[in-house]
Amino acid sequence: MEIPVYENLLKANDVIAGQLRSLFRQHRLSVINLLGSPGSGKTTLLEVTINRLRREYRVGVVEGDLATTRDAQRIAAVGAPVVQVNTRGGCHLDALMVQQALPQLPLDALDLIFIDNVGNLVCTSGFDLGESAKVVVLSVTEGDDKPAKYPPIFVQAQAVVISKIDLLPYVRFSVAAARSEIERVHPGIPVFELSAESGAGLEAWLHWVRGQHGAA
Amino acid sequence: MEIPVYENLLKANDVIAGQLRSLFRQHRLSVINLLGSPGSGKTTLLEVTINRLRREYRVGVVEGDLATTRDAQRIAAVGAPVVQVNTRGGCHLDALMVQQALPQLPLDALDLIFIDNVGNLVCTSGFDLGESAKVVVLSVTEGDDKPAKYPPIFVQAQAVVISKIDLLPYVRFSVAAARSEIERVHPGIPVFELSAESGAGLEAWLHWVRGQHGAA
Repeated sequence: MEIPVYENLLKANDVIAGQLRSLFRQHRLSVINLLGSPGSGKTTLLEVTINRLRREYRVGVVEGDLATTRDAQRIAAVGAPVVQVNTRGGCHLDALMVQQALPQLPLDALDLIFIDNVGNLVCTSGFDLGESAKVVVLSVTEGDDKPAKYPPIFVQAQAVVISKIDLLPYVRFSVAAARSEIERVHPGIPVFELSAESGAGLEAWLHWVRGQHGAA
Repeated sequence: MEIPVYENLLKANDVIAGQLRSLFRQHRLSVINLLGSPGSGKTTLLEVTINRLRREYRVGVVEGDLATTRDAQRIAAVGAPVVQVNTRGGCHLDALMVQQALPQLPLDALDLIFIDNVGNLVCTSGFDLGESAKVVVLSVTEGDDKPAKYPPIFVQAQAVVISKIDLLPYVRFSVAAARSEIERVHPGIPVFELSAESGAGLEAWLHWVRGQHGAA
């Protein structure tokens, strides 16, 4: 007898993701799931995004990490409601973790939720969290070959952020090559080049985030 | 009835890893399994290491990636025998993949094998590949908080390379803080600070690699 374990796991996740999607709709919440390698700059992008949008939107955050509450502390420091999920070794958030964490956030007092997923360019892409959109954050320090070498996450995403462009003078990274690889893997996907440190390129990203809220 | 799937998976991997370990011993091969985030600099470190050791050791490489043969092409370009494993979405190499790939390498004509694992700071640590040592490569662009946030891989490793130190002037990364976190997670583990680009710090790393071969 064959035991279809992995298939069942995904189905269970999809059922809970569907419940999350209903919950988010009911509370008129847009939810953006940030994916990317460890250190790609997801949390720094979040800090800046929350600061820049604070007069327009009430933003909450679900932080995912194997261990520690460090990222949640960083988000709390910029004044946003936040809940930390510790996966205890798990390589991605799943819908059940998000469902169990959400009661810690004041859903009726929020417009936007960001999910700051575990740093992982592979495993995070396969799990629906009921989000409105998945965004891959790829830093220029990681190399322009990553979209070709890690295609599934770029296929699953609805947008790509090329981060840390302030470091372009110091690394071998061709934005044109990266854009061309991303376009080949996922034709038409929007790509934003920015630096959360310098502020360069943030406006186009924030405009896209506003559009996500409008679309929800 | 409970189906202990994950446990069995690890056991199967361990059986094959044991076969690999015997094979490596039989061929007097030392095997170093390089782990780290996408873009942490594993392949660049390998290129430089192969170049610097080529008069002392015959080095072969097993490249692991979800897709493409790009990294294998980079290794072939520096003149080392190499075999590319494509995991087709899988987030780590396992012992069976390595076992199936090894007949493509001239084992009797090698002293050292490097395994350039899939870029992943989580999943790669749990799978024994019969290696002599696991090494985590952590680039300074990833942030000094990563050992605390991703502890299991630092617990599993026998050495840590802090890479891309030529970029220290441009990023917020405290080598002292990173070393302190690593020491807390894995007391006594050797840590090498280096830049494969500038060559800084390479000698201590190469000395450790030589010691690995002596120990095998």
